[in-house]
Amino acid sequence: MAKQTQLAHCECPVARALEAIGDRWVLLIIRDAFDDVRRFGEFHKRLGLARNVLTIKLKQLVELGILAVQPASDGSAYKEYVLTDMGRAVFPIVVSLRQWGERYLFEQGESYSQLLDNDQAEQVQTISVRSRSGKALNPEDCHRRVVRHEG
Amino acid sequence: MAKQTQLAHCECPVARALEAIGDRWVLLIIRDAFDDVRRFGEFHKRLGLARNVLTIKLKQLVELGILAVQPASDGSAYKEYVLTDMGRAVFPIVVSLRQWGERYLFEQGESYSQLLDNDQAEQVQTISVRSRSGKALNPEDCHRRVVRHEG
Repeated sequence: MAKQTQLAHCECPVARALEAIGDRWVLLIIRDAFDDVRRFGEFHKRLGLARNVLTIKLKQLVELGILAVQPASDGSAYKEYVLTDMGRAVFPIVVSLRQWGERYLFEQGESYSQLLDNDQAEQVQTISVRSRSGKALNPEDCHRRVVRHEG
Repeated sequence: MAKQTQLAHCECPVARALEAIGDRWVLLIIRDAFDDVRRFGEFHKRLGLARNVLTIKLKQLVELGILAVQPASDGSAYKEYVLTDMGRAVFPIVVSLRQWGERYLFEQGESYSQLLDNDQAEQVQTISVRSRSGKALNPEDCHRRVVRHEG
């Protein structure tokens, strides 16, 4: 695991993203936060993760700026964890994981959940990689270029 | 970690996907496979992952059906690991991780790699979740419905 800590300094944004959130529990916490789960006890109940591990993961997510801690919305003494803009921007990652799972990891007749838009109650579009002009791109249709980040 | 093994049987496709590939090294191996890395030694050199761990991760990826093992394309005795259709379908997940990393994990002036389409040498579109009619959707614009998989 020698290079793990170096991923955060890599030129590759995939490596940096995975250093930050490339962990199944972290992504499941974010998934639950999209369902408006906000409290430690609720995350614990839904995920069944050991309390000490959940504490560490939530702390990481706050330090990364993906979750913010705020007082409970009902005025009680609980803390609530809410997604920041950076956290909300993980949505396409979670949906692309969902769509890959739907396609490859269920047998005929098994129950699974679909994601629908509220207005039309239709399944959302299948996410694909597209050029500016809208052409669907495969990995071999793409290449990389190193540039400086403009902040 | 009590529920970890149950994720594979969950109705939530996000949980099943994360059970399969929710691991930073697994996703980095897939990223490298998109760059046409095929041999154990090449993965080892690029990722710097311990050989025994890399062996386990590659075996998992073959068992899941994401990589297939084939004889070396140059006729040598090496084995090559190549992405199956199921593996190639991880592309939007890797690109959405990339785009989130580009946006949030680089400081001004740092070097990073952009993904361009070969034809136009322009950056690919930013991935977003969209309704059938093309409207950009936020998490609160969506809901879930449980259905039976038609295989």
